[in-house]
Amino acid sequence: MTSAERSPLIRKLSAFVGLSKVELAVLEQLHQRRRTFAAGKDMVHQGQSDQAAYILSSGWVCSYKLQPDGTRQIVDFQVPGDFLGLRSVLLRTSDHSFEPIVTIEAAEVLKSDLLAAFAQTPRLATAILWAASRDEAMVVEHLVGLGRRDAEARMAHFLLELGSRLALVGIGSREGYDCPLTQYHLADTLGLSAIHVNRVLRQLREAGLLTFRDGHVSIHDYARLVELAEFDPAYLDQTGPLLK
Amino acid sequence: MTSAERSPLIRKLSAFVGLSKVELAVLEQLHQRRRTFAAGKDMVHQGQSDQAAYILSSGWVCSYKLQPDGTRQIVDFQVPGDFLGLRSVLLRTSDHSFEPIVTIEAAEVLKSDLLAAFAQTPRLATAILWAASRDEAMVVEHLVGLGRRDAEARMAHFLLELGSRLALVGIGSREGYDCPLTQYHLADTLGLSAIHVNRVLRQLREAGLLTFRDGHVSIHDYARLVELAEFDPAYLDQTGPLLK
Repeated sequence: MTSAERSPLIRKLSAFVGLSKVELAVLEQLHQRRRTFAAGKDMVHQGQSDQAAYILSSGWVCSYKLQPDGTRQIVDFQVPGDFLGLRSVLLRTSDHSFEPIVTIEAAEVLKSDLLAAFAQTPRLATAILWAASRDEAMVVEHLVGLGRRDAEARMAHFLLELGSRLALVGIGSREGYDCPLTQYHLADTLGLSAIHVNRVLRQLREAGLLTFRDGHVSIHDYARLVELAEFDPAYLDQTGPLLK
Repeated sequence: MTSAERSPLIRKLSAFVGLSKVELAVLEQLHQRRRTFAAGKDMVHQGQSDQAAYILSSGWVCSYKLQPDGTRQIVDFQVPGDFLGLRSVLLRTSDHSFEPIVTIEAAEVLKSDLLAAFAQTPRLATAILWAASRDEAMVVEHLVGLGRRDAEARMAHFLLELGSRLALVGIGSREGYDCPLTQYHLADTLGLSAIHVNRVLRQLREAGLLTFRDGHVSIHDYARLVELAEFDPAYLDQTGPLLK
């Protein structure tokens, strides 16, 4: 097995496109510059220019925007198989910051690497545009969540989405998943206070729906949780290759 | 002048990449299936599958998500040069709906057209990924706006962003632009009531910052408006071709 075949990105892109040998080889090349980053230290700063993108192979990353008043809004988390800063490598300056939540491993991808890869296999360009479209669909869901869902539904929706994303790359299921997020991460994501997050998690636990404890989310009643959150995973588009 | 050279999309992509003759010819091909759509009737429904994407050449479109309770959250507006449903042509089902605000002209683009275009010119794939990244950066700004900006700053930021986007395709300036949006559109975008929208616009007018009246936004004091909104247009990334 090559390193690319082990890559969560390959598992993820396979949900969109049946990858050929050539495409697998090109993805392999994109994984050449492997790097490790420590938790808690920004990899990319908001406003930084000329940075690389990264393909995350293990660990979790938080992407956020700092506000002029010093507060932060978490935009999303990246899990294995996700691109970090695909936007940043194409836009001149990064519109947000990235911070590893745990020690992570990632492959560095330069703009020239992307262009070379697209030239070799245009289907891969389409697959990466698919992944970017899916990321945008998630941000749209978060926007709708902030605007329209109550705290309990917002939390349930967020934790169900994470579970689906992790399941796609083989590290989660409908029963649950390991999750290194703190209540502060959840608060800054969902627009709630840490105290409110704590209360909402207790309500979900007491209702027999899920428990988030000691770095693990245990889902006790998937169907009822889906109903509470009105969670329709169609926007994650991960039901098998569309492009044969 | 060919029809593609007249296209606002070409003007827009030229902010990212210096387009070659071959790339212009491929873009020309993408503009072949021209269609007209009437105002007020959805072009694409949320949940619809197998639909095309469109390149908007004239008019404005609103993209929104319907909530289970019947309310709608407007995600964004599309102006000339924007793709409609680039996400929808790649994801299996559309995660939102599109409604023309006025009569529009758009070119239909199928998934097979995109794949063929990418195969002919990979730089075009990168340019379209850039446009998609820019769209995502805007959704992120809207998310932050809903979460963190007060009503006046949110309105000012939104109207400044629209002005910059329109200026890029030659139909707006720092002095102002034609704008077919109603106060209901603004309300559903900014998470405000129509009455609140009316009050905020009056405050901005009385402060000598801008007037939105009779389908036209007049900006009276660009610098002070930028300051009020803390508007930094870097995320729109439109300061000249990055890729020569």
